[in-house]
Amino acid sequence: MDIPTNGRIYDLEQPRYFGAPIYPSHAPGYFYTLHRHHERGMGEARTSASGFMYTTEHSGTHIDALCHQAEDLYLYGGREVDASVQTSFGFTELGAETIAPLVTRGVLLDVARHRGVDHIGPGNPIKQNELEAAAQRQGVSVGEGDVVLVRTGNGALWQDPAVYLQAGGMNGDASSWIASRGVRAVGADNMAWDEMGIVDPELHVTLPGHVILLVRHGIYIIENLFLEELARDQCYEFTFICLPLKLKGATGSPVRPVAIAQGG
Amino acid sequence: MDIPTNGRIYDLEQPRYFGAPIYPSHAPGYFYTLHRHHERGMGEARTSASGFMYTTEHSGTHIDALCHQAEDLYLYGGREVDASVQTSFGFTELGAETIAPLVTRGVLLDVARHRGVDHIGPGNPIKQNELEAAAQRQGVSVGEGDVVLVRTGNGALWQDPAVYLQAGGMNGDASSWIASRGVRAVGADNMAWDEMGIVDPELHVTLPGHVILLVRHGIYIIENLFLEELARDQCYEFTFICLPLKLKGATGSPVRPVAIAQGG
Amino acid sequence: MDIPTNGRIYDLEQPRYFGAPIYPSHAPGYFYTLHRHHERGMGEARTSASGFMYTTEHSGTHIDALCHQAEDLYLYGGREVDASVQTSFGFTELGAETIAPLVTRGVLLDVARHRGVDHIGPGNPIKQNELEAAAQRQGVSVGEGDVVLVRTGNGALWQDPAVYLQAGGMNGDASSWIASRGVRAVGADNMAWDEMGIVDPELHVTLPGHVILLVRHGIYIIENLFLEELARDQCYEFTFICLPLKLKGATGSPVRPVAIAQGG
Amino acid sequence: MDIPTNGRIYDLEQPRYFGAPIYPSHAPGYFYTLHRHHERGMGEARTSASGFMYTTEHSGTHIDALCHQAEDLYLYGGREVDASVQTSFGFTELGAETIAPLVTRGVLLDVARHRGVDHIGPGNPIKQNELEAAAQRQGVSVGEGDVVLVRTGNGALWQDPAVYLQAGGMNGDASSWIASRGVRAVGADNMAWDEMGIVDPELHVTLPGHVILLVRHGIYIIENLFLEELARDQCYEFTFICLPLKLKGATGSPVRPVAIAQGG
Repeated sequence: MDIPTNGRIYDLEQPRYFGAPIYPSHAPGYFYTLHRHHERGMGEARTSASGFMYTTEHSGTHIDALCHQAEDLYLYGGREVDASVQTSFGFTELGAETIAPLVTRGVLLDVARHRGVDHIGPGNPIKQNELEAAAQRQGVSVGEGDVVLVRTGNGALWQDPAVYLQAGGMNGDASSWIASRGVRAVGADNMAWDEMGIVDPELHVTLPGHVILLVRHGIYIIENLFLEELARDQCYEFTFICLPLKLKGATGSPVRPVAIAQGG
Repeated sequence: MDIPTNGRIYDLEQPRYFGAPIYPSHAPGYFYTLHRHHERGMGEARTSASGFMYTTEHSGTHIDALCHQAEDLYLYGGREVDASVQTSFGFTELGAETIAPLVTRGVLLDVARHRGVDHIGPGNPIKQNELEAAAQRQGVSVGEGDVVLVRTGNGALWQDPAVYLQAGGMNGDASSWIASRGVRAVGADNMAWDEMGIVDPELHVTLPGHVILLVRHGIYIIENLFLEELARDQCYEFTFICLPLKLKGATGSPVRPVAIAQGG
Repeated sequence: MDIPTNGRIYDLEQPRYFGAPIYPSHAPGYFYTLHRHHERGMGEARTSASGFMYTTEHSGTHIDALCHQAEDLYLYGGREVDASVQTSFGFTELGAETIAPLVTRGVLLDVARHRGVDHIGPGNPIKQNELEAAAQRQGVSVGEGDVVLVRTGNGALWQDPAVYLQAGGMNGDASSWIASRGVRAVGADNMAWDEMGIVDPELHVTLPGHVILLVRHGIYIIENLFLEELARDQCYEFTFICLPLKLKGATGSPVRPVAIAQGG
Repeated sequence: MDIPTNGRIYDLEQPRYFGAPIYPSHAPGYFYTLHRHHERGMGEARTSASGFMYTTEHSGTHIDALCHQAEDLYLYGGREVDASVQTSFGFTELGAETIAPLVTRGVLLDVARHRGVDHIGPGNPIKQNELEAAAQRQGVSVGEGDVVLVRTGNGALWQDPAVYLQAGGMNGDASSWIASRGVRAVGADNMAWDEMGIVDPELHVTLPGHVILLVRHGIYIIENLFLEELARDQCYEFTFICLPLKLKGATGSPVRPVAIAQGG
């Protein structure tokens, strides 16, 4: 597969600013202040402005590293969590710096469209059969090494944090089905991929997709994507590019993924 | 031009950690702490770890937004700096969020190799004619819309901050020549593109490239690139991809640029 | 005046935590994360836990340094604001580190009690004559070198940020009268001493007390005090102790003031 | 005992700035940036400047809360460390907010003077008998409820972090003796009270005083004091005042302790 550089580039990142939606455990999320200012009296005609940001790696559009989740205190690959792998400054294995650049085939499954709704709210999680039906209706398949993006439609609600946090998401069997396809990463336009607050009946955990994908299968999760333009253009297959920052030991990275449409 | 997705992907980002080289004005640069830990007693088998980072947008491998620099208190495009454009929380124009994804032809000019040295130290800045000679010797041209990366060889010294900061860089006429080619962005494997500490004889400013490129021509600058593998493989033309985070109002963004070699 | 160390110590600081009331310009205020944890596997029986806080110096109970405010770009003492006094890392003069420890006579003026209300809401700012009347009714005078604390009763509402921010405060003539008494510092149990959002008819500025006290008279302002216990005990004269941190160049400091009652 | 308010006030806090000495585990220590600046164009004559600090609670002159240390994963009072007491946002018990204001008799033991040296370097930790001998020579006793400050002379070296970190400190029996006197808190003019890097022969831990004082006896430790002026004036008894910030759940607090001399 070739990427035509004249293909349209879809920007899948939500804008970053203080006050954007944030998962409660990660509040206050992201904050930026300018401190060096352009001003008179600096001794030469050129002046420089710069700032500092204080942010969790899980603010805004971001990718989860494999060390982000554990099951019974085991990480992906059977690594037990102890003081040699989990330190106060981050993880010595499976941190964000171990995520290779993602440049691969991407597939969008537009479940909101499949359901005929603007956006999927809570209370009716997305199931395996809906993913399969959406793929079939769209005429796309999900294959090994792909990145699969699922649209709930909630990306359009980013400006309203309270509403955005009330989004629907995947249930456990949806994550299991995707994992079985051998994908490299998944993503969605909601806060946590999984539907928040629901305990999986089999795994007895909340956010079961985080266990299934990250811990059991080593599949990355990308959250808070903006998929509205891609969906509007019914662009269901594309080259997906996501370049996580190599934050040593961090449990994820803010990212700006893009989808490049197959050239026209 | 097509990008073969089976082309080799070169990772051009230096790793991020506290203690990495940092321009003195931007110290302490980058700092990350884990705070949510995997541990027993969390009520379910699944546990979550996460942290916070405190960082300037100019730490590590990063791109400068146009608002980062001013000349006589004017930004690119003739926008005068005042309280409506420069705020304590960042800029209302020309901030990092206005940088489009860069997916374009990239060219590497290996000036260290041209000089026959491992790395270029301070005291002998890189000049226009060296860039032209390196391009000619390599058989590449620099054209409109390209991203031009210049190798000084200092990227190999990232682990030694004191040495890394003693790198050579461009002089003013080198930046002027590149600007005249109509490129979209430039980058180098040193701290500041320009050679630090030298006053340009014409512009009477330090870091003249920052005025020439950012303020006068609207050309982005990428700093602290890792170009060693690209140079080793003599990969002088490639698809260059850089996806800056949309940090609203910030004067730049950390990035993980990649070069994708033309498929073999 | 002697301070009996067996006198009751009143703690005048509100507790500090993320989510406490904060002046909108200073959001997100205060945030603390633990990162070094007590855990097994650290190599010895002793373990150490510690964290990092990210906070404005104006969060919670705090004192304003003189550099915090300017009038027509002049600081207290006639110092014009320029790049030599105001830097990106703080002020080279009049910063928090220049505030001497405050150990002096303190006076409480309980205006809420004087008005016969639990707490003073917005819309009816506290005036000079109320301060004088409260002092007279309480049988206390305000003298040179004193610290004067004014109770609005809003300190009891700290747990409810939205309500807390709707507090009443001083008007300009109240601040002028206090300044004329030659006090060293003032304080109140509200967010900004002044009533927020009102333009002074004479000075044509918001928060006129900030100009009158800090800029014109060099009198410090302490905000977000907890005065409920002091008022309940009708303790109107006491030894006031406040020890600002010597944060070089900062525009204020978080503090934990105490009042020590005259021994019984 | 009465505190004469006209007694001399000794300021025992070192100044706070980025680059000050910091215990390696706590780097980068303290960092402050101004972001709101006095500038033209703000709409009224009054302008406001303010900033943000990023700091560990263990930077500069600070007091350790009881939750800071554990022995075999037990805190002071026999509280076992588990997820209910130790959280990612701090401790639910024994945090800095539980430290009452310290207003009590203080005693200075000038061991540097006793040894006849300017400052005590590493390699010869301060022992019980030296503390007793210094007290005897000075004619002071250490009693229940006191705060005991020990001078090593290293406070004069604050400007030189590399040298400052090479200070001497207490050994285990010195801490045990002080603990046996029933004091409320101890302090010293070095980084860690204890001499860093030495394993106690009995407790088999580094920094044994941290176990003996904090964990076993509930006695607070104050570090990085400035004791030079107090020592120069041979002021060995005084009223000691230290007002820790009520940082909920934090493992300590920056403080500005003062000593008030008995009036002349």
